[in-house]
Amino acid sequence: MALVVQKFGGTSVADIERIRNVARRVAKTYDKGDDVVVILSAMAGETDKLIGMAHTISENPNRRELDVLLATGEQTTSALLAMLLTEMGYPAESLLGHQADVVTDCDYGNARILEIGASRLRQLIQKRHIVVVAGFQGCDVKGNITTLGRGGSDTSAVAIAAALEADVCEIYTDVDGIYTADPNVCAKARKLKEISYDEMLNMASLGAKVLQIRSVGFAKKYNIPVHVRSSFSEEEGTMVVNEDSGMEQLVVSGVTHNKDEARITLRKVPDQPGIAAKIFSPVAEAGILVDMIIQNTRPGGETDLTFTVPKAEFQRAMEIEAQVATEIGAEKVYGDTEIAKVSVIGVGMKNHSGVAAVMFNTLSRENINIMMISTSEIRISCVVEEKYAELAVRVLHTAFGLDSDA
Amino acid sequence: MALVVQKFGGTSVADIERIRNVARRVAKTYDKGDDVVVILSAMAGETDKLIGMAHTISENPNRRELDVLLATGEQTTSALLAMLLTEMGYPAESLLGHQADVVTDCDYGNARILEIGASRLRQLIQKRHIVVVAGFQGCDVKGNITTLGRGGSDTSAVAIAAALEADVCEIYTDVDGIYTADPNVCAKARKLKEISYDEMLNMASLGAKVLQIRSVGFAKKYNIPVHVRSSFSEEEGTMVVNEDSGMEQLVVSGVTHNKDEARITLRKVPDQPGIAAKIFSPVAEAGILVDMIIQNTRPGGETDLTFTVPKAEFQRAMEIEAQVATEIGAEKVYGDTEIAKVSVIGVGMKNHSGVAAVMFNTLSRENINIMMISTSEIRISCVVEEKYAELAVRVLHTAFGLDSDA
Repeated sequence: MALVVQKFGGTSVADIERIRNVARRVAKTYDKGDDVVVILSAMAGETDKLIGMAHTISENPNRRELDVLLATGEQTTSALLAMLLTEMGYPAESLLGHQADVVTDCDYGNARILEIGASRLRQLIQKRHIVVVAGFQGCDVKGNITTLGRGGSDTSAVAIAAALEADVCEIYTDVDGIYTADPNVCAKARKLKEISYDEMLNMASLGAKVLQIRSVGFAKKYNIPVHVRSSFSEEEGTMVVNEDSGMEQLVVSGVTHNKDEARITLRKVPDQPGIAAKIFSPVAEAGILVDMIIQNTRPGGETDLTFTVPKAEFQRAMEIEAQVATEIGAEKVYGDTEIAKVSVIGVGMKNHSGVAAVMFNTLSRENINIMMISTSEIRISCVVEEKYAELAVRVLHTAFGLDSDA
Repeated sequence: MALVVQKFGGTSVADIERIRNVARRVAKTYDKGDDVVVILSAMAGETDKLIGMAHTISENPNRRELDVLLATGEQTTSALLAMLLTEMGYPAESLLGHQADVVTDCDYGNARILEIGASRLRQLIQKRHIVVVAGFQGCDVKGNITTLGRGGSDTSAVAIAAALEADVCEIYTDVDGIYTADPNVCAKARKLKEISYDEMLNMASLGAKVLQIRSVGFAKKYNIPVHVRSSFSEEEGTMVVNEDSGMEQLVVSGVTHNKDEARITLRKVPDQPGIAAKIFSPVAEAGILVDMIIQNTRPGGETDLTFTVPKAEFQRAMEIEAQVATEIGAEKVYGDTEIAKVSVIGVGMKNHSGVAAVMFNTLSRENINIMMISTSEIRISCVVEEKYAELAVRVLHTAFGLDSDA
């Protein structure tokens, strides 16, 4: 008999029929004797619909009121699920963020959870009630409604699991687990039984859209096992766990790719102190996130500076840098949107040298030119021409021994 | 400089454009220097849509969860209006029922307001903020969300006006005031400048759908002037006030008609003690509201018993009474759905005899047969054949001197 937190995403609660499906699944866990706390997202598309409504009012809607508006999405699904469960004869009760004592800071639209007063939750669980908590929302100390940002329901789920010291936090989604690569690109990709929090953190930031990155940090901090699985099948998914919990030790656990970035190069930047600040401050002030940066200084003090930005921000960034180039006397600004970032990730590479060499050799054998490289303790990323992205994923997947037997 | 509570109904907030219209109206009042508290309903049709959704889950959805679901309707409009007002540069803030401290009992779906802790509202008003309160909703002492029943936003508005000792509670709706009769039936009907709480209570229960009856009782208890007016025009509407507040004294203030009832007659009921209980208990147990009752005893102990029920319940009531008639040995049960109730209402009639006589004579002059009569201190109602309803309204309107000069 365990305490299980189950979180269902927007596609799992997209309509009444799917919510009925969720109710059956929750009931099944409860019938086994487990205690269940359910965290729900809004119906798929609902949050975007509400944001669209707010944008007919203002380009920049009042953040406090936007949160009040958005919170209705999860309120709706939570009430409907609790209604279905009681209709099926189960003792169920919905709690909104403030009712579940999810206390956050007051950064509307992107609030951080400060604490969860789990006493009401515990009381209901002790009475063997199924508690359905509206995800994505909380309230600040003054009782104002806040939301946790995109994918915030994952964070709600993991934080509530942590507060309740739950045995597991199950994240039900429309994929059945974490794969070694995108199966649409790499036919030999296989589902991982386990992955470490750190690998998942690197995966998520590189484009695996399964789990919100902040929730993984939370899970790691409180050591909550997270089970990522499909709400449409009974199969086991992937466990996200601490890396020393007896995981199978692969050098590389996955290969990811990301086509959402573009590259900007400033040619012949004068090699002077403070020049980098002049180049990056205006971009940062415009709220544009810079990912990789490479600086190349040639003899004679000539420097090329290259960096990547999200494709959606490319035009704005180019305009800003054209201005900057004139001011600092750089020769020219080049832009390139046809790039992709390919990464290999694995906690195993900490103890294995030669991972980078295998990666570079593998790509070179296919005549794939590497334009930029960045590394972390458990990740190596290369920027390549966009058209080679899929090929790069496949050959790296094979090179690191990840291909399924099938 | 006054404290004004403004309530806008569903048709006034049916879409963003209409909510924008509401924002302009609120801003105008604020710009005059008045303090404004706004109470909103859900968008027209939204509550029915949500109830429909709940009914796909259950014929009898869990009442607690239904309230959580329904509360999203007013949450949405309140957030949108506060967003619009801040976009226009006004300091505005939405409060949900629980945030505005609207404490109710826990009769989900039909909760009664126990008290309103107005301290947060007062604080915001003192800072010259416009407060937008979600109507129709509150919370019980445990923090569970409750709703106040159909038209509950009117009650929210009047109760909040009472708690704040507001100068006036303005009810914005899709009609421009209270008329002496339905203008669709009586071309000479005119808008009343004033009407007393008691008259309004009698109007409302007789079919004038402008103001929820419970809110009128509240307004009367706390002596809150209620201004019923159109959200689509600038014209003054009708003030609902205490009858001794210097109102124009008409004998009769209005003529109403109601076609929503049906009549049931039990022929030759044995004249025995306890027989009425046998006839009405089963109907009451079935949740059917009986309005008028007439008992007619003839020499020899033979009694006919006639009463009215809502048309929607007519079939059920007939089936029940057929059973009853057999049990008690009544001769027969007759039913008649083609009836209408026509009423004249006026606080003035308390001090004027002869109102009933004028009414009966006027109807008889048109050969309109009176089937049933009931009276209260300030109202006389007659049941007539349905086809005569409009004619009856018009001739009574003229007879009591209500016709407009136009």
